[in-house]
Amino acid sequence: MTEKNFAGRIEMDPIAYVSNCRYDLSDDYWGGLISKIRLVPRISADALRGIEEFSHLDIVFHFHRCDSSTEFYGSRRPRNNPDWPEVGILAQRAKNRVNRLGLTTVKLLKVSDRELTVSVLDAVDGTPVLDIKPVIREFLPCSEVHQPLWLSELMRDYWRTPTSSDGE
Amino acid sequence: MTEKNFAGRIEMDPIAYVSNCRYDLSDDYWGGLISKIRLVPRISADALRGIEEFSHLDIVFHFHRCDSSTEFYGSRRPRNNPDWPEVGILAQRAKNRVNRLGLTTVKLLKVSDRELTVSVLDAVDGTPVLDIKPVIREFLPCSEVHQPLWLSELMRDYWRTPTSSDGE
Repeated sequence: MTEKNFAGRIEMDPIAYVSNCRYDLSDDYWGGLISKIRLVPRISADALRGIEEFSHLDIVFHFHRCDSSTEFYGSRRPRNNPDWPEVGILAQRAKNRVNRLGLTTVKLLKVSDRELTVSVLDAVDGTPVLDIKPVIREFLPCSEVHQPLWLSELMRDYWRTPTSSDGE
Repeated sequence: MTEKNFAGRIEMDPIAYVSNCRYDLSDDYWGGLISKIRLVPRISADALRGIEEFSHLDIVFHFHRCDSSTEFYGSRRPRNNPDWPEVGILAQRAKNRVNRLGLTTVKLLKVSDRELTVSVLDAVDGTPVLDIKPVIREFLPCSEVHQPLWLSELMRDYWRTPTSSDGE
């Protein structure tokens, strides 16, 4: 068993933090949100050199507002919606997941010294960022993407822009 | 500063391991490789329930064969190629990166109990997997992906299938 090589835990330090005006963890309405991603002092601005040549970035982050005691290993109906099937946590992108890793492809709007400005990031203010990778065409799915119907329903309002009638 | 909330390190445990016939860390020729991803005992098969309805998965993994002392924070020419510009580690997907996180979108070929069979995974045998997420259309780039020319050159043989004439 290869497992024997890695009995220990894997430790990471944030390389950057998200700064934006989103504080609530509710599921929908991430559209229109602009975020800054600011490097921590130990990472030099040099690490971002040339990043402005890319249109999109993969942001790997930590769901820091989810308590580790809520980490989920089994299956459940997404958003507890009785209309949707019971599916495993690794067949969903829900945040209360083992290792609490988030991953989103964002659009890069601006680079200035130690700070990136991005859109389409579904992370609240203060989120620790663990990695930033450029999106490259050769790493995109090379065949058509299939997904179950319930997921298309779930995503209906996800990237919608909040309006005053949506509350807050 | 939001940083104050997260002075500590973030710790993770592998949820699965990669099993395949690739041992060498060289850069190219990942085409044609079929890998198994096997859950560790503490994760139940239930965590995979319904995953067969997805065609593609995002696999987040740990570059365990890169020593932490080689983690790179600055900029350099990719593959030390003098024809390519000096770019920051966060503007490349090279493995000797801070936090040693890997991320690849794979094609799901088969699910059986606690094991996934996938293609298009550029990870060597024994790689610890930290998260598995279904690829969903609403999370793909919503506009055209741009990247620098040097990267398209770098990727030329990346997904090529090795042949006997490529040596070992």
